[in-house]
Amino acid sequence: MEKTNVAIVGFGNIGAGVARLLLDEGDRTARHAGRTLWLKAVVDPDTTRPRGVDLPASLLTDDLSAVTGDESIVVVAQLIGGIEPARTIMLKLLESGKDVVTANKALLAEHGPELFDRARELGRSIAFEGAVAGGIPIISAIGASLTANHITSIRGILNGTCNFVTTLMEEQNANYQEAIGEAQARGYAEADPTTDVTGADAAHKLAILAQLAFGARVSWKEIPTAGIDGLDVADINWAKELGYRIKLIASAEVTEAGLELNISPTLLHRGRPLAEVREAFNAVRVVGDAVGKVFFQGMGAGQMPTASAVVADMIDTVVGRAGITFQTLGLWSRKEDSASIRLADPSATWSRYYLRYLVDDHPGVLAEIAGKLGRHQISIASVIQHEAQKGAASGESPYVPLIIMTHAAQEGAARQATAEIEKLDCTIGRGVCYRVMD
Amino acid sequence: MEKTNVAIVGFGNIGAGVARLLLDEGDRTARHAGRTLWLKAVVDPDTTRPRGVDLPASLLTDDLSAVTGDESIVVVAQLIGGIEPARTIMLKLLESGKDVVTANKALLAEHGPELFDRARELGRSIAFEGAVAGGIPIISAIGASLTANHITSIRGILNGTCNFVTTLMEEQNANYQEAIGEAQARGYAEADPTTDVTGADAAHKLAILAQLAFGARVSWKEIPTAGIDGLDVADINWAKELGYRIKLIASAEVTEAGLELNISPTLLHRGRPLAEVREAFNAVRVVGDAVGKVFFQGMGAGQMPTASAVVADMIDTVVGRAGITFQTLGLWSRKEDSASIRLADPSATWSRYYLRYLVDDHPGVLAEIAGKLGRHQISIASVIQHEAQKGAASGESPYVPLIIMTHAAQEGAARQATAEIEKLDCTIGRGVCYRVMD
Repeated sequence: MEKTNVAIVGFGNIGAGVARLLLDEGDRTARHAGRTLWLKAVVDPDTTRPRGVDLPASLLTDDLSAVTGDESIVVVAQLIGGIEPARTIMLKLLESGKDVVTANKALLAEHGPELFDRARELGRSIAFEGAVAGGIPIISAIGASLTANHITSIRGILNGTCNFVTTLMEEQNANYQEAIGEAQARGYAEADPTTDVTGADAAHKLAILAQLAFGARVSWKEIPTAGIDGLDVADINWAKELGYRIKLIASAEVTEAGLELNISPTLLHRGRPLAEVREAFNAVRVVGDAVGKVFFQGMGAGQMPTASAVVADMIDTVVGRAGITFQTLGLWSRKEDSASIRLADPSATWSRYYLRYLVDDHPGVLAEIAGKLGRHQISIASVIQHEAQKGAASGESPYVPLIIMTHAAQEGAARQATAEIEKLDCTIGRGVCYRVMD
Repeated sequence: MEKTNVAIVGFGNIGAGVARLLLDEGDRTARHAGRTLWLKAVVDPDTTRPRGVDLPASLLTDDLSAVTGDESIVVVAQLIGGIEPARTIMLKLLESGKDVVTANKALLAEHGPELFDRARELGRSIAFEGAVAGGIPIISAIGASLTANHITSIRGILNGTCNFVTTLMEEQNANYQEAIGEAQARGYAEADPTTDVTGADAAHKLAILAQLAFGARVSWKEIPTAGIDGLDVADINWAKELGYRIKLIASAEVTEAGLELNISPTLLHRGRPLAEVREAFNAVRVVGDAVGKVFFQGMGAGQMPTASAVVADMIDTVVGRAGITFQTLGLWSRKEDSASIRLADPSATWSRYYLRYLVDDHPGVLAEIAGKLGRHQISIASVIQHEAQKGAASGESPYVPLIIMTHAAQEGAARQATAEIEKLDCTIGRGVCYRVMD
């Protein structure tokens, strides 16, 4: 059988998974590619650490030129995380004539325009199914399967760490610190979980999806982002009492005000598919005008699910499909339609809201707060106020939580009203303001 | 912009949806294909019936040679249902040099080998995303996105009509006849719903998926199939009491006994993604050894969801991706791996079972039935027997339903035990024996 030489640059967790599939399961890649994907080199600065894969010693090197200087290698899985040296190495790979497959979402979200332009100039391709939602083929779904649609909405659970943490908080009544500790102990969160829990990782992925689905040339830093790092288990419990779950939701919605992008803890009604996604799973709901709602769920990270996506991209590249997709999608190019996408002013977008304030349990307090909301055109759908509980944020104070579910209101109004209510004498501490999706 | 001429053969409901996307939404197909998909001809024996789409009169003809004789037309959406004349027309289209896109699952399930061989001989391609689960890109997922996996299990709700009917039966306590009437009134079931309710349509689709995922060259008629046409709302209610829902499930599982294919009403534990799929939605759960579980849900039928899949296939064909996929997949070809797939002996496959018998409410009856089960190595997990109810199948007789949930047992044993139990003096009528999936 014909052989096509491939290489891996970056021999970490994902790289080891890719090596395992190429070395141990060559028959299946051969069957789908019509030829053997022959792993000719693996490049990593660390050539000694064991990775649990039986790699012939001659393959592993710390010298990138073993790949860039070998013309017989045509496809490279570039699996280095972070921005540098990943960016420089990807440019070198493209410039040495390689088609590249990557799972590095931070790199694409930050330097997509530069990298894709360079690949186009050089006649090369970049495939990146593994960069968003790991084993869920969402890039292929939006980039190829749903091309007959005008996509109007994408909502996703794009970060498995956050979903694992919120699941633990809900199901075990754990507080945030306990849950993140458990996630770290079980390998679902890194020692420094900042990128995950602040929503930055989800923002990287949403920036890529927004480019893919809407041609929006948006930096991930422009996306209004709130993480789960400030999440209080009290709110998860209130949400539960109201029939909802709180998840970190990444959303991109086409509205009259423009394309609305957002990452934030969001209340989802139980029973809805996204609300039922537990633990470290990812999920994406796409709405297209022809197809209606399509829902995808699977493992969004982890060694083998991501390696599954990377190897599928390598096969796609070898057979030529990835090159066609790369050309026809024209991602991050300066096509006219990119210019026509207008981002919505975040403060002008509409949502229902969950509000929680700690209030002094006196007569007239609800009227005062309701009055503030009313002046911002925020209409109350329901209210919960229980009797004072011990162990609330304020200890055994006279303050009790007041929970308000609103009808649809503008984000700016909800934020402004909350800021004003926080300053009232009858409230203490910060208010909570989360979106609610039906 | 460059133009590529395309045509539609079969101007029914789906054909009209495809025409609408091509005519009204040409800009989006152009953006994804890099050229305009120009609808040059629509062929149907009925050129007068209105279809709710604004088709220029000059396009519509009853003469197939307007397509087969026009060399400028390169891609044809063949959207005639049934076997003939669809088969003959597809062969003519291939022989006149057209690449074909179809949504006809019955045709592929019955004549896939002939049609795919002929297309290969002629250097043409057949794309068929719309044939299985409509708007869910399951063909692309299995055929391209999950190619790095050894797929071990596919379970799906592949027939929207059946799922709509079982949803109505469960949620409105409707009997089968009432539910099918409501489904017909709401356009979810045809006047003659036989193909849907007997499971034949699901078997067509499963035969295609089994070929795609496992290389199994199996006729849909070989798949053990039970439909929902014999489903009693009483069983749906008993299942509910036990925490389950009954759905028509199509399953393909790799087991030690070989590839096990089955279509039957099946109990699914509530909360599991497939159990939560309501109304006319379709869903598919695929398990791969690298990716783990991946779950897809969307509209499985209907004009625009299916048209969405057909037009995406037309774009894929025009840009060249479909041709590559067609070649690399080698579907229904005589590759060696086709021969290596062994179908499991259905009677030797294992499952848990839900059993219901109408029994005479006498002492010793449970012992007698439990004894029969025990002699077939069927172990009882739980039993429900309520007091006699009015309005049961036997009227106000002394017979009461006895519901048994078993541990894993062999299908042959469960069937044989049920046949023997039906013959006991202490039971009346037919027993019920459904699979249970966790």
